[in-house]
Amino acid sequence: MKSELWITEKQTEDLLMSFRVKNTLHEEITDFQQLAVVDTYAYGRMLMLDNIVMTTIKDEFVYHEMLSLVPLNTHPNPENVLVIGGGDGGAVREIVRHPKVKQVTLVEIDEKVIVNSKKYLPEIAAAFDNPKLRLIVADGIKHIQENHNKYDVILVDSTDPIGPAVGLFALDFYRDVYAALKEDGIMAAQTESPYLHDKIIKQIHSDLKSLYPLVKLYLASIPTYPTGLWSFTLASKKHDPLLVKQDDIQDMPTRYYNSKIHFSAFALPNFLANILE
Amino acid sequence: MKSELWITEKQTEDLLMSFRVKNTLHEEITDFQQLAVVDTYAYGRMLMLDNIVMTTIKDEFVYHEMLSLVPLNTHPNPENVLVIGGGDGGAVREIVRHPKVKQVTLVEIDEKVIVNSKKYLPEIAAAFDNPKLRLIVADGIKHIQENHNKYDVILVDSTDPIGPAVGLFALDFYRDVYAALKEDGIMAAQTESPYLHDKIIKQIHSDLKSLYPLVKLYLASIPTYPTGLWSFTLASKKHDPLLVKQDDIQDMPTRYYNSKIHFSAFALPNFLANILE
Repeated sequence: MKSELWITEKQTEDLLMSFRVKNTLHEEITDFQQLAVVDTYAYGRMLMLDNIVMTTIKDEFVYHEMLSLVPLNTHPNPENVLVIGGGDGGAVREIVRHPKVKQVTLVEIDEKVIVNSKKYLPEIAAAFDNPKLRLIVADGIKHIQENHNKYDVILVDSTDPIGPAVGLFALDFYRDVYAALKEDGIMAAQTESPYLHDKIIKQIHSDLKSLYPLVKLYLASIPTYPTGLWSFTLASKKHDPLLVKQDDIQDMPTRYYNSKIHFSAFALPNFLANILE
Repeated sequence: MKSELWITEKQTEDLLMSFRVKNTLHEEITDFQQLAVVDTYAYGRMLMLDNIVMTTIKDEFVYHEMLSLVPLNTHPNPENVLVIGGGDGGAVREIVRHPKVKQVTLVEIDEKVIVNSKKYLPEIAAAFDNPKLRLIVADGIKHIQENHNKYDVILVDSTDPIGPAVGLFALDFYRDVYAALKEDGIMAAQTESPYLHDKIIKQIHSDLKSLYPLVKLYLASIPTYPTGLWSFTLASKKHDPLLVKQDDIQDMPTRYYNSKIHFSAFALPNFLANILE
């Protein structure tokens, strides 16, 4: 018989999502946040930071493929890639298998996220031994400030804009990211739910538009994130994701992303397109 | 101060969604199902049937626009439209404002759904007085059996395939729908979540493929439905939704649907495309 043990995420003040729990694998307070790994019936093992679902075994592929592969396939030669955050390793796993990538630098502030992902989420933390990976445990904001004209693609794989990640949603940070990118560089960031966080999305869009000639929002369906619809914002100095040739999109054994999804993810519902005008 | 009254939907055995409640507006047992209208903080007034969320004021537009406008804009002349189910009136509201529609017939089995939607969800039940509407309270399965070669478009706006709606997911029903459609007719149905109900989706797809030359799945993001991603299946005797000219898509004041969404909704993630092969 299944247990009646449930874990509940307060997605907003007015909305709860509860997952039936097989067992709790790990809990600790790190230097930065509360960390838990819980095994659930619906989504398998789940990483929670400060009681918010970060990633689960069953639906992580959507987030990691869409954050990584849309910008990587927009850039004609994404040799040198940086990930800020993303200590679970899911984005890195996608990036290292892209044939044009020569090196990916992962800068995660909380080593405990890496340690516990390797231990409890090996399917996600699958590329920490990959020779393409350069792993740095440090503050991503500082790393960005110390590097100029270096990266082809920078991904911001952050938690929500509360707690340690607040600085990763600020105009100053985006300015430093711009400087850390090469002259045809691209950045992409997770930018919350269109149904819940339209003000944040609008602000990020406007901030990035003040820096980059090309800023576009794209969407993916992620069941364990609030409302099930998630946004990513791509900002590019030169290359347009919608002008990519379909044949140039790398054929990889993905579970969500493909060449049709690459383009269709940028089609925005009216309620969302209207707030970005 | 906000109440601590919550209503919880058991989305699956292992997954709960809870909404903070302002107040309960109505509850009754009809001849067919348990009906409740609850006012929630997150999504406004919400219609529940047998404890499952049917529609809410804040996100109903996605479902109703996508069920109705994708097939209507695929047919060059959708003069005569039938909706099976859909007693809340949301689909009808979309259909009557399409300029090419001359008549829409709504066949709802449970009059109480209509009565309570008109009373508590007037924004959704907004077109019951429209002269284009022919309202019939009856079993949709019988109505379909009694009509041949009559409709341009038939929409199946059903509850989940349990309880009164089981027959609306059966091959026999689809065969009768085929017969009720004109020679270039189109049917579309809500067909559950790709993340939870892949077997149902696959079965429906296969059943419809045995009848129609063209069967396509399309997707929309609906926050209050389990996993937040919902599928619709369109089956067509002649017209292909992907061959519609962008300029032929009616310009209507929609909140979700637009000409880009019309096409992008058919782009399927790999995990879903693979099960339909």
